[in-house]
Amino acid sequence: MAAAWRSCSLLALSGRFTVQQKLGRALYQSQWVTSHRNLSTSQIAVEVNESTGVAVMKMKKPPVNSLNLDFLTQFSICMEKLELDRGCRGLVITSAIPKIFSAGLDILEMYGKTDEHYAEFWRAVQEMWLKLYGSNMATIAVINGNSPAGGCLMALSCDYRIMTENPKYSIGLNETLLGIVAPFWFRDTMINSIGNRATELSLQLGLMYSAPEALKIGLVDELIPEDKIYETALNTMSRWLAVPDHARQLSKSIMRKATVDRLLTHRESDVQNFVSFISRESIQKSLGKYMEKLKQRKET
Amino acid sequence: MAAAWRSCSLLALSGRFTVQQKLGRALYQSQWVTSHRNLSTSQIAVEVNESTGVAVMKMKKPPVNSLNLDFLTQFSICMEKLELDRGCRGLVITSAIPKIFSAGLDILEMYGKTDEHYAEFWRAVQEMWLKLYGSNMATIAVINGNSPAGGCLMALSCDYRIMTENPKYSIGLNETLLGIVAPFWFRDTMINSIGNRATELSLQLGLMYSAPEALKIGLVDELIPEDKIYETALNTMSRWLAVPDHARQLSKSIMRKATVDRLLTHRESDVQNFVSFISRESIQKSLGKYMEKLKQRKET
Amino acid sequence: MAAAWRSCSLLALSGRFTVQQKLGRALYQSQWVTSHRNLSTSQIAVEVNESTGVAVMKMKKPPVNSLNLDFLTQFSICMEKLELDRGCRGLVITSAIPKIFSAGLDILEMYGKTDEHYAEFWRAVQEMWLKLYGSNMATIAVINGNSPAGGCLMALSCDYRIMTENPKYSIGLNETLLGIVAPFWFRDTMINSIGNRATELSLQLGLMYSAPEALKIGLVDELIPEDKIYETALNTMSRWLAVPDHARQLSKSIMRKATVDRLLTHRESDVQNFVSFISRESIQKSLGKYMEKLKQRKET
Repeated sequence: MAAAWRSCSLLALSGRFTVQQKLGRALYQSQWVTSHRNLSTSQIAVEVNESTGVAVMKMKKPPVNSLNLDFLTQFSICMEKLELDRGCRGLVITSAIPKIFSAGLDILEMYGKTDEHYAEFWRAVQEMWLKLYGSNMATIAVINGNSPAGGCLMALSCDYRIMTENPKYSIGLNETLLGIVAPFWFRDTMINSIGNRATELSLQLGLMYSAPEALKIGLVDELIPEDKIYETALNTMSRWLAVPDHARQLSKSIMRKATVDRLLTHRESDVQNFVSFISRESIQKSLGKYMEKLKQRKET
Repeated sequence: MAAAWRSCSLLALSGRFTVQQKLGRALYQSQWVTSHRNLSTSQIAVEVNESTGVAVMKMKKPPVNSLNLDFLTQFSICMEKLELDRGCRGLVITSAIPKIFSAGLDILEMYGKTDEHYAEFWRAVQEMWLKLYGSNMATIAVINGNSPAGGCLMALSCDYRIMTENPKYSIGLNETLLGIVAPFWFRDTMINSIGNRATELSLQLGLMYSAPEALKIGLVDELIPEDKIYETALNTMSRWLAVPDHARQLSKSIMRKATVDRLLTHRESDVQNFVSFISRESIQKSLGKYMEKLKQRKET
Repeated sequence: MAAAWRSCSLLALSGRFTVQQKLGRALYQSQWVTSHRNLSTSQIAVEVNESTGVAVMKMKKPPVNSLNLDFLTQFSICMEKLELDRGCRGLVITSAIPKIFSAGLDILEMYGKTDEHYAEFWRAVQEMWLKLYGSNMATIAVINGNSPAGGCLMALSCDYRIMTENPKYSIGLNETLLGIVAPFWFRDTMINSIGNRATELSLQLGLMYSAPEALKIGLVDELIPEDKIYETALNTMSRWLAVPDHARQLSKSIMRKATVDRLLTHRESDVQNFVSFISRESIQKSLGKYMEKLKQRKET
């Protein structure tokens, strides 16, 4: 898709694009840019470039941007502010931490806690996805490192995915390998990008794809060398912002509304399913073993 | 797909195909053909070859086969006659105008008119699609030129798409760029051909694909040099007509009925949505600007 | 998919895989294996390897493993036993007859019989699919020969498909060419593997795909030389069994339950549709002609 996308002829817009590409470059060469607004929280750096209308969000929660309750809450608050900001039309999401985009849901939030805690955590996961998948902004994920499980879900929820051209980085919904199961809206989000069959293999086997494999099956849209990835994202964004906002937003809604509504309709039963699944003795035991292994690895 | 299709082994039918291919060639070499019936209207030339059961429909509404109320009405009447004609089993749709298949919906029908007019126009667009997407005939689009927006929809509504092998020609649902939005049944028709992800990119960005790009993502099935395209279409049609009619029609219905029924169920609300959207002041203003631009281009 | 699948990095499981691959090889080298259980029937050979938990089912109904009422009943009984056997986690399905996987539904069951017989037969076809498509086991089809119609359905109902690398063998849902029509759950099963557009072409034209074509469109996952295919299947199975059972089964269910439920909900009307279609005079006549042709072929 990416190649086709880049070379496609957008009728009647070639003139506009030149202007927009200059804007993209201008944003990249930060000395040209005059005004930034800062919406950062302790774990998420957010800058809105007021001249281009593009926000850049950098996740900075060491060591691996794991999605715990606190981080997810900060994320949803950020999204809400950006969404209400009429001057902000596009969002680039990336990581400030080398080699990792996000390690996904924090297992600590799913182990040895009360049912109330599990429910609260899961609602925060749902909220993150609802805000991102249903955003009115044009959203681009710059996947500059590994991106398993919930990290992959975040990337899949954006409108476009650019990944570092590095076969060492991988991405995928690999929950199954931990003995847990991706809920229906993870599944739907993946099917909407890579289709039913590739999703079936992915979920049954908990597959992680290297960057080139991810490109091949459409899990990401482009691979770009690390030192060009940010510039590419901003140039790409300028093309998305060349499209009239209201028509782009309505088109996005016509593509995603049914998927979003499915979770909204079943939100509370989805929380209950998660709580009753994760609190099972067998699941807790297997998560415990997994964390033990991780700990041993770190120590050696 | 096309390559696979061409070389696939149709069990037990190899003998029949030889005969059918001869029929295809016979139709092409018009001196062999004995009887034609003419159903043409002022803007659409239609000839039914009675020996092969194949109708060829050529759109001839200068300058760009734009789909206005009059043309759409002629089209639907034609389709109805062909559908009722038991001797007509296949339909080839193409353009009699060089370099353009169809420019899509006529913007003049959407600008500065009454709500009643918008509603009447939209019902005619719906009718065109219902007749074509749900046709019992085997339908092949010969896309011999540019095919944006409604032109792309017409092509996507056929059973098979052959496009001129010319990278200058492009095809796509680019409504978004004009600030308007493809309705759900345009979306469904595209998803049914190229899948969810490619459709999402197409609709959000209003992408036009050059002929080679269109082949790559499955928006068309084959690219053929201009001087062979008509012959290829007739040969291809002879393969479709080698399949028993009732089984082919039932299989088509099992694939398309749910999509057709969705519009039939929501037809009137779809009309209302269109009318209230298109009559908005902001939309009218942006269409006005667009037409001004087109006029200036012609004048220079 | 296959290549990506083979090289994908399954996080944290590399150690386990080495062990599992040894198990795979161990099963192949049968002298290493200590204990087998035999569940065979007259037309189906079934052996469960108790140390690996893998059952191998070989269809052996000469001349072409056609699916008649008796065979389907034996198949469903086998599946039920395997499903209830907690020690059996994976199933490999293949043919004991050279050059054919299965020729599909037995036409003799659909010709010149009573409506009651048609209904009984169709329920048995449904039961076969429900048992296989919804199995809790990891299922791999080893397609070691031609696999038209119902044979293709069986293969598509497994979790993974490995076909002999031989362009002479072909696979596809070609019912349309016999004048009969694949029901909605055949359609759904195919769409879930190869998507909507390829299914539409397949069903309308009754396409058979050679092994390389089948790989290209995703109808099978891998092509392997005949003498390596069994070993490959067992190695592949060891990778599926490295995934925790309950998470793999829940992921499979989340992908397939809606499709299974659609048939369960409409099971009786699907039987009625089949009976009223197949008992039509025109259909009986065309099946009669087809069988006459087959008979003549055998005699010459």
